[in-house]
Amino acid sequence: MSAPNTKQIKLDEAEMQKAFEVIGDVQNEIDRLNEQASEEILQVEQKYNKLRQPNYKKRSDLISKIPSFWISVFLNHPQLSSYLDQNDENILQYLKRVDVEEHDDIKSGYRIKFTFDTNPYFENDVIVKEFSVTESSETTCKSTTLRWKNETKNGQSASSSKKSDGESRKRAHDTENNNNEHGAFMTWFTDTTGEAGNDEFGEVIKDDIFVNPLQYYLAATTNDEEEGSGGENDEDDDLEEKDDEQE
Amino acid sequence: MSAPNTKQIKLDEAEMQKAFEVIGDVQNEIDRLNEQASEEILQVEQKYNKLRQPNYKKRSDLISKIPSFWISVFLNHPQLSSYLDQNDENILQYLKRVDVEEHDDIKSGYRIKFTFDTNPYFENDVIVKEFSVTESSETTCKSTTLRWKNETKNGQSASSSKKSDGESRKRAHDTENNNNEHGAFMTWFTDTTGEAGNDEFGEVIKDDIFVNPLQYYLAATTNDEEEGSGGENDEDDDLEEKDDEQE
Repeated sequence: MSAPNTKQIKLDEAEMQKAFEVIGDVQNEIDRLNEQASEEILQVEQKYNKLRQPNYKKRSDLISKIPSFWISVFLNHPQLSSYLDQNDENILQYLKRVDVEEHDDIKSGYRIKFTFDTNPYFENDVIVKEFSVTESSETTCKSTTLRWKNETKNGQSASSSKKSDGESRKRAHDTENNNNEHGAFMTWFTDTTGEAGNDEFGEVIKDDIFVNPLQYYLAATTNDEEEGSGGENDEDDDLEEKDDEQE
Repeated sequence: MSAPNTKQIKLDEAEMQKAFEVIGDVQNEIDRLNEQASEEILQVEQKYNKLRQPNYKKRSDLISKIPSFWISVFLNHPQLSSYLDQNDENILQYLKRVDVEEHDDIKSGYRIKFTFDTNPYFENDVIVKEFSVTESSETTCKSTTLRWKNETKNGQSASSSKKSDGESRKRAHDTENNNNEHGAFMTWFTDTTGEAGNDEFGEVIKDDIFVNPLQYYLAATTNDEEEGSGGENDEDDDLEEKDDEQE
């Protein structure tokens, strides 16, 4: 260390300038270390993303066999459920898989892939919503164009034909969404302007639901189907003890 | 992979239970990977914290020789400046060093060490504010007890004796803080209840100012001392080219 004396001493102009230069050099070194740390952390995240991948795939395969898994998860999620109305439920009952894929450079974005069973609303079986972060830290998004089955191109008659016999499950925000024939989910999905709570939906799915969807499904069945379920759903702690694989 | 068929097939109760068990197993594996990833990221952060330490020390030694460095930084910080009033300025002009030290387990907290020159307000030369995160994710904090020089134990007369000749630098929140003899900074420092914007002040210092204090100092001098400074302060880009050390 070359700084001889840290007591407050009066510096002349030249000494001041010199001091600022050295502070600048040290600051550059700190900045360099910060960048290097970010880079290493990114590598760790990428490594674990790869390791998680086969587990996500296996989980997704298994979940796709459980009827109404994703609609139950969404309806039981404290944030999402308050947005969803009967139109959402009509469509989301056909949702079979939800897969979140981070971009290779994690900070640059992610995509959510929704796989649907054959349904009366649209032709697509897989629809993708993708969020990208630009160099200038702006978030943009794009989504698969839906091929609606009705000529109206917005599925209105399909979804409203169901509405009359499904009044019982109206949600809190239903009245606000009445002018919205596809419900909040499809509005979010198709909106690429960044409005309609764009990030919130996506982030809830990526950072909360996808981390552990089972907990929301189990909470849902505990609430809705308590009678006669034979105690198979007493929280996921139960599930830790079994090791066998499904044949 | 033992899942034979990912098409939606009707499972009987036993098959469903089995499926949930396997999903639970896969989820446990995902959780384990998440924990392992967090642990590795923590290690990277700790490694770089150690590497940054000598640079922070050197930077702090150098800064302590620049008169009014920290008060200039605080007054020029967009968030902090709006909180500070004349009482803050009277005290903070004696602030010589600001050192942020993360706990070894970074997630468990950090401390900010403020080193003061001999001053008319309190006896302490070093005062420390420490934030700790408990196992249950609660943030608690404690701070050094100030040994005020005035019998009133709150420094009131010392700070108000200065007030009359320093009216010119009153800040936006001054009137709100009028009932507060030590100013917002000392109120924040001594408050350990989590009120008074406790986390905000600490986090601005830790995550913004301490990352690069020079930029705020230079912005301050560019505003306040533009005449006659001989162009030594044209942003820190300038500083990247010099490599010499101060003898």
